[in-house]
Amino acid sequence: MPKKTIKEFDFISQYLTPLTSGFKGALQLQDDIAIFPKDANTDYVITLDSIAENIHFLKSASAKQIANKLLRTNLSDIAACGATPKFYMMTGSLMPEEWIKEFTEEIAKIQREFGIFLLGGDTIKTKQKFFSVTMIGEIAKGKAILRDGAQISDDIYVSGKIGEAWLGLQILKKNKKILEIIPKNKYQYYINKHYAPTPQISIGKKLVCIANSCTDISDGLLKDLNNICKTSNVSAQVFADKIPLAIENYLQQQITAGDDYQLVFTAKEIHSKKISKLNCTKIGKIVAKNKKPEIILLDNNKKLKINRLGYEH
Amino acid sequence: MPKKTIKEFDFISQYLTPLTSGFKGALQLQDDIAIFPKDANTDYVITLDSIAENIHFLKSASAKQIANKLLRTNLSDIAACGATPKFYMMTGSLMPEEWIKEFTEEIAKIQREFGIFLLGGDTIKTKQKFFSVTMIGEIAKGKAILRDGAQISDDIYVSGKIGEAWLGLQILKKNKKILEIIPKNKYQYYINKHYAPTPQISIGKKLVCIANSCTDISDGLLKDLNNICKTSNVSAQVFADKIPLAIENYLQQQITAGDDYQLVFTAKEIHSKKISKLNCTKIGKIVAKNKKPEIILLDNNKKLKINRLGYEH
Repeated sequence: MPKKTIKEFDFISQYLTPLTSGFKGALQLQDDIAIFPKDANTDYVITLDSIAENIHFLKSASAKQIANKLLRTNLSDIAACGATPKFYMMTGSLMPEEWIKEFTEEIAKIQREFGIFLLGGDTIKTKQKFFSVTMIGEIAKGKAILRDGAQISDDIYVSGKIGEAWLGLQILKKNKKILEIIPKNKYQYYINKHYAPTPQISIGKKLVCIANSCTDISDGLLKDLNNICKTSNVSAQVFADKIPLAIENYLQQQITAGDDYQLVFTAKEIHSKKISKLNCTKIGKIVAKNKKPEIILLDNNKKLKINRLGYEH
Repeated sequence: MPKKTIKEFDFISQYLTPLTSGFKGALQLQDDIAIFPKDANTDYVITLDSIAENIHFLKSASAKQIANKLLRTNLSDIAACGATPKFYMMTGSLMPEEWIKEFTEEIAKIQREFGIFLLGGDTIKTKQKFFSVTMIGEIAKGKAILRDGAQISDDIYVSGKIGEAWLGLQILKKNKKILEIIPKNKYQYYINKHYAPTPQISIGKKLVCIANSCTDISDGLLKDLNNICKTSNVSAQVFADKIPLAIENYLQQQITAGDDYQLVFTAKEIHSKKISKLNCTKIGKIVAKNKKPEIILLDNNKKLKINRLGYEH
């Protein structure tokens, strides 16, 4: 038996998408969320994110940091489609009692912040630590903002700053060059951005009926924007000098690093005034359909080379 | 930091139940399912089951066997509350392509058998194989059969036979004594009962408005009946000679082994005629409330000693 593993994208479309049996709300597994009906006026949206030791968090990560990573990544997926998070199911490794105490205390804090609660779950004895959450939110029927709605001549926006989580990770990894640039009293700020990113629930809700497409930046700005382009079958021009970077320079690192959990979205120009009030920055434009959707990164009309788009699963 | 782990039951009530924020449908995390609203006439039920290598399946288990275990355990939880399974979210270890092919082909077969489909999910790179499914079903509003409804003088029933999955496991483990008793041409039958148990969806649905309480036998007949007793705050008398065992003798092994995924339920005597048509066997009675709920196992009015109730998580 050949032991090769295949790319996540091919794996999904070839083997998993057929299992959705054509159910429309599964969105062909091309989005981070899926949709199923609540009542005549409301849809449920559902998302699932799993994290494992040495892949999504360092071995040194505390129970508190893991609690934040776990819930906030899921909350961010709910935010990106404009929905309101409601409740979640959780599974994960059975841990020592002290660890559980710290973990659940932090979970309770996050629950209060976002008005969510635990509905059910189980625990499992494993050697490698892993945790998984399936979160459910609500949105007005048919109004979820998806990846596949980007239109030609849409403006491209990002919320907040790009690269803050990457800076936090560099500080944790004791990257000397970064430690020299960042003032010591800002270290904790950036580490928090890495472990406890802010899901943009409030901005997401305001983008309903405004944004044509939206996703959260979990794998890197370019990679996640590329997901919008692939599913919408369009290309994107991004103006490097417009990107609201966390620090000057380190452009490639910041726009290809994951974990910022800001939103990247597209909208018609007519909405630009409304969007300008939302702490979002216009960084590019959706351009004519190509045979092969691509991202063109421009610096003063000069095309910059892109070595990689972001985190590969 | 003390590295002690605590028992699953205490772990849940002490640390996790408070996180349900008093939401009624979470059933204080005392059931395998939780309930959340669909529309005016319908509830959704939701359940989550995770399985890991060397714990829930042997290292030698094939992709096909894992696919069956994973979906059927979740389907069984949906069956036990009387609901109709609809769709599910899935997460698991990223595997080689050949493995995925075999796995998804089997999943597709099970989907057709039960009329369910995949709604979403993710994959995760891990050393230890694990898989987790969150399944959602539907039931008429307020009609889900729960663990906590057992009443004094209810009859206790089980569906099908008890111990078949245990026999399958003994055959897999090459237990000589068992291999000698069972005809060779029945080996595969029992192995299938271990890896591909039949979720009792049809019986579960017929028990709606009949059974006062129900659960599926995943951890052993006595252990799962004990869960009903604990949550209903009652005790149970079980008549050993009435239990429909898979083979004669090996009583303790068969009634404490997990994985049969038959139903154990309680109902008022008035329903006994209806239930007798369902391939179910009356095995005991719910008796007066005790200070401490317990299971009394009787053989011709003689109390049998119970060393253990079933599988401890």
